[in-house]
Amino acid sequence: MSLMTSQEISRLNVKNLTFINHIKAMAVIGPSKKRDYFFVKTHQANFKGNLYVVHPSVKEIPNFDSNRIFSSVKDIPEDIDFVFISVPRSKILEVMKECAEKGVKLASIFTAEFSDAGTKEGIELEKELIKAAKDKVRILGPNGMGLFYPKLGIAWRPRFPTTEGNIAFLSQSGGICNLAIYSSIPLGITFSKVFSFGNGADLDFVDILYYLSNDSETEIIMCYLEGIKKDRGQDLKQVLAQNKKPIIMVKAGKSKSGALAAKTHTAAITGKNKVWKALFKQYNVIEVDSIEQMLYTTKLIENYGIFEINNVAVFSISGGYGVIMVDLLEKYGMKVPPFSSGTQNQLNKKFFIHGTSSKNPLDVSAQVFAAESMYEIMDLALSDREIDALILDLPSWYFNQDFHLKKNPQFEGKIIDALCLGKQHKKPLIPIIQRTICPEDRARAVKKLTEKKVPVFGDPLEFIPLLAKISEYAKKLKKKSP
Amino acid sequence: MSLMTSQEISRLNVKNLTFINHIKAMAVIGPSKKRDYFFVKTHQANFKGNLYVVHPSVKEIPNFDSNRIFSSVKDIPEDIDFVFISVPRSKILEVMKECAEKGVKLASIFTAEFSDAGTKEGIELEKELIKAAKDKVRILGPNGMGLFYPKLGIAWRPRFPTTEGNIAFLSQSGGICNLAIYSSIPLGITFSKVFSFGNGADLDFVDILYYLSNDSETEIIMCYLEGIKKDRGQDLKQVLAQNKKPIIMVKAGKSKSGALAAKTHTAAITGKNKVWKALFKQYNVIEVDSIEQMLYTTKLIENYGIFEINNVAVFSISGGYGVIMVDLLEKYGMKVPPFSSGTQNQLNKKFFIHGTSSKNPLDVSAQVFAAESMYEIMDLALSDREIDALILDLPSWYFNQDFHLKKNPQFEGKIIDALCLGKQHKKPLIPIIQRTICPEDRARAVKKLTEKKVPVFGDPLEFIPLLAKISEYAKKLKKKSP
Repeated sequence: MSLMTSQEISRLNVKNLTFINHIKAMAVIGPSKKRDYFFVKTHQANFKGNLYVVHPSVKEIPNFDSNRIFSSVKDIPEDIDFVFISVPRSKILEVMKECAEKGVKLASIFTAEFSDAGTKEGIELEKELIKAAKDKVRILGPNGMGLFYPKLGIAWRPRFPTTEGNIAFLSQSGGICNLAIYSSIPLGITFSKVFSFGNGADLDFVDILYYLSNDSETEIIMCYLEGIKKDRGQDLKQVLAQNKKPIIMVKAGKSKSGALAAKTHTAAITGKNKVWKALFKQYNVIEVDSIEQMLYTTKLIENYGIFEINNVAVFSISGGYGVIMVDLLEKYGMKVPPFSSGTQNQLNKKFFIHGTSSKNPLDVSAQVFAAESMYEIMDLALSDREIDALILDLPSWYFNQDFHLKKNPQFEGKIIDALCLGKQHKKPLIPIIQRTICPEDRARAVKKLTEKKVPVFGDPLEFIPLLAKISEYAKKLKKKSP
Repeated sequence: MSLMTSQEISRLNVKNLTFINHIKAMAVIGPSKKRDYFFVKTHQANFKGNLYVVHPSVKEIPNFDSNRIFSSVKDIPEDIDFVFISVPRSKILEVMKECAEKGVKLASIFTAEFSDAGTKEGIELEKELIKAAKDKVRILGPNGMGLFYPKLGIAWRPRFPTTEGNIAFLSQSGGICNLAIYSSIPLGITFSKVFSFGNGADLDFVDILYYLSNDSETEIIMCYLEGIKKDRGQDLKQVLAQNKKPIIMVKAGKSKSGALAAKTHTAAITGKNKVWKALFKQYNVIEVDSIEQMLYTTKLIENYGIFEINNVAVFSISGGYGVIMVDLLEKYGMKVPPFSSGTQNQLNKKFFIHGTSSKNPLDVSAQVFAAESMYEIMDLALSDREIDALILDLPSWYFNQDFHLKKNPQFEGKIIDALCLGKQHKKPLIPIIQRTICPEDRARAVKKLTEKKVPVFGDPLEFIPLLAKISEYAKKLKKKSP
């Protein structure tokens, strides 16, 4: 059974995190002079509220207002919603007690060597830490990077993007968060919030997933998950049951050695692969195999929404590449059918060069240089009611005028317009711009298209398997709510 | 039975092409003023022998020696080994007759609308063309781009690479050839020869494959194949049976719609997928799914040779990414075992930062900034006798000093040295440098590594499935010749 009764929902064993959206003041506790006040700087760069620093002895920090440095969080003359803690392990209990007394709502604990150290002492200290928080301070960590929240300017790293979006990412691993966040920039993915919850001593995967699933700032949820605590299985199921947003999941530790590695990494119990597979199937979670696939799937959904794809139009510059795309689409369960006769008749009139083919897969060959006709051909293909999506290839050198026999400065603009036609037709149009020569020209075209929310790839295998996954998600969704 | 008797080999029904390696003089027949003498220019740029132009009326071409322009190939005062023909279709028979009289050995025919047009007239004209060649002139085409031979400077396109190498590519489709050739530049793949044989009216896939299989300038053969003529099946088997070089194959038209598309594209009979699968299995052909996979597989083999991979060492900056790589390696049949105890003892001494793991998968975390220790760790991992290969991830921002807390101008050089360690150990070392921010820094690092023949990828799925394919090839090879 995949649907919960309201009674079951009300029994949900999750912690409330809605206060996160209203963080007004924060403090960095225990900044390190040796590390050049790294976490002060990362938060100072963009935090929209009042930022304080807490340190027992530091009185001055370059380029930071000394009046905002206090020796205890309790001395700060306003309410503190959020603290980022990087004090030595030996100070953690004292600091946490003070946070509880102060009424801090959320603490990110960067300090490590608690349960992650695998020692009895570390495990014990983590328990003490939770006690010290008195169920008043919610904790991200320890051994985590905490919270990236571009809307409020909360960031644990320099050069994190400042644009706010509606994608969330949730991961134990801070390294994976860094990779996803830095990768998001060229992809044009923008975040609502990213959580790195480390050991998950207090807030864990289930709590944060529930929060994101009900967060008005979040529309798509990406997850990197190694495992959950044994007693959280039922809670996770209930959270998944009430969720209505697309969840894109990398479940790591599926293989034998992978499970062992995950245990070393975050002491996670990864569980049986079969159980996870069944769970994801039941609750329509989109499972992918890599962080790159996770980002690409999200980009496709963010750009075109949730779409069901049965019939695809293929458009290629070289007939051969078109045939390869057709093979791959069919391999992943999609079809490349003939156009309906009305569309076909109109398309036939648009091809005027030998060696082209006006059938699906379309082969435009050297007619590509006639950019206006490319626009018309794509427009016609997408207007066919039987066609759900258009994919095409356009090697990077076409964006370099030196490769055009007749210079045509209008070419690039017209082609870019054509590549945006998916928006008009509300059907995915996905170009492959192969990574050949002319990397600068490719980069320029990709940038323009990314700004217009058109997802560009470099290789058909980067996205064709993902179209199938999104389509499967859409079909299940339709079944569930007819 | 996969081995042929010498008798069978002697009965091989293939045409001799060894003369290609000794082309000394060539002519471009029928250059087009309208196309700004395109094919004259592409050959003039780099052809190492004597280049002539044949045209009935053109007497002058800008920047071309008028004394080398003749109205008939027969008038050229030296032997002509190779001609590139782009005359109108109506002139083709006359031109071919003259070539036969002149003793031309090889003709590339760019002119199209023969059997490719699908008309009775076109098919007939193609037959006439073959007759006119009198079994004296070997023909590439019609409707093909012909021959790219960087060693001799034969090229049908501007900006084709001029470096000679030992990779061959064989494709009906000229567009696919252009893509492969232009893609080879950033990948550092260098060609012996590339053949685009179009309709294959005379020289076909089987002939050229046999030639390349015995060509001393070629070590790896890449193919894009849509299909062969029905009566060539037995010949193809014999050619595959005598071949000793790795063949990397994209067999297009495997799906229903793909087969139909291939028929439109080159009138190829693609045959049953099952039959092809069995053939490739029997003759140990490495089949891949895309042109990108074909190029990547070739790059791996060119950089590290044919290797058998059972046990892989994984090295990651973020433990999470390491777990994903482990899962993928196991998914594709490889293992990530513990290091042997001797290696493990030595490795344990090299890790000095909290949060790292000295076990396989290695997790170096922030210790990555200590480049010297990275070198030592990779060196140790590769020296383990149980380990066949090392794969690792290093996001692009590590190559930008602004992301280093302590500036270390030596970092990049030392890391590059470390990434070259596979060469010393004669084991594949394959870095992933993720495409995040800092594209310029990534490009610089990739360029350096490409020059040192280290294959770099951007995503684990780009190459992990290919390692499995190469390893399978190696195992079959070993079985065959123990």
